[in-house]
Amino acid sequence: MYKRQGESRAADYRNRLADRGIDTDISGTDNASAAAGSRIVVAGVPPAYAADTIEAVRDDLTEEAIVVSPAVAMARNGTGFHYDTPEAGSVAEAVAAVTPDEVPIVSAFQNLAAGALTDLDRELALDVVVSGDDADAKGVVVELAEEIDGLRALDAGPLANSAEIESITPLLINLAMNNDGMHDLGVRFQ
Amino acid sequence: MYKRQGESRAADYRNRLADRGIDTDISGTDNASAAAGSRIVVAGVPPAYAADTIEAVRDDLTEEAIVVSPAVAMARNGTGFHYDTPEAGSVAEAVAAVTPDEVPIVSAFQNLAAGALTDLDRELALDVVVSGDDADAKGVVVELAEEIDGLRALDAGPLANSAEIESITPLLINLAMNNDGMHDLGVRFQ
Repeated sequence: MYKRQGESRAADYRNRLADRGIDTDISGTDNASAAAGSRIVVAGVPPAYAADTIEAVRDDLTEEAIVVSPAVAMARNGTGFHYDTPEAGSVAEAVAAVTPDEVPIVSAFQNLAAGALTDLDRELALDVVVSGDDADAKGVVVELAEEIDGLRALDAGPLANSAEIESITPLLINLAMNNDGMHDLGVRFQ
Repeated sequence: MYKRQGESRAADYRNRLADRGIDTDISGTDNASAAAGSRIVVAGVPPAYAADTIEAVRDDLTEEAIVVSPAVAMARNGTGFHYDTPEAGSVAEAVAAVTPDEVPIVSAFQNLAAGALTDLDRELALDVVVSGDDADAKGVVVELAEEIDGLRALDAGPLANSAEIESITPLLINLAMNNDGMHDLGVRFQ
């Protein structure tokens, strides 16, 4: 993202929240500056760009950085949406392959619909499934996720277990397409 | 299954239910006789045998038969359980490939833990995700699933969408392995 785009997007979020009486210090900038100034770097971009985006900022990442991969590779055909398995096994592992070895990657947030998260009046009762090889980094992301009301974070084990988490997202779309009254679906394990 | 095994398993189920004051007419027999006498044929066998089992009884299936595929192909490695994608795309499609063209296949019940279903005191609030190319057959399986208290059946579209449903099952095991107090997990979409 370019600096002006980042600034403008951040201003939108600030204004939306200010309208509800919530003051925030959300700020936007370009990718390199964002990476350099962040502890938690979320690669919130389309799956085809996730690895490239992180690779482009890999030298900007700080020593304390944690990279979070929320992207899902999907393809649509005549029957619906399908998980389009990346060569690395999952998007999260493709991102890990271009991240410096000392920076931990956590896979998370794939199964949350943007429509559900941005509807600030919606009550959530959903799970965020987290996977990764660094227990401390995973713990930080679990805490972050659970700061959102109605979200529970669950641990699916090492990063190599991310594919089965990412695969749920095309199913969520297929379910919304085939069942009346369902949209912006998430998942709860019980 | 051989006739005596089938009979003995059926007697176990009858007795367990009789102990709770429930009379049933559960009966067991060999696979060919079961196929010949059934409208709904559930290939409840390990994934490696699902297609072979149905192929062995294909000439015994009646004109009204519906074949239900609940199996999931999984492999375990050092990180946990993984979906082991069959060449046909999913177990359900592998079963469909050996079933007579006029017999519809419905993929369903993959994400229910045996431990949860056989614990007759457990209250369920889970989803059964159904996929298939024959709307009528899917409707029959939806009704069957929803006759079980606490189960809701959702339609994921055509049979080609089964892989993403089957993929959830190894994740359910990974979650049970990595989160205290979770076991025999199922899934709910909301």
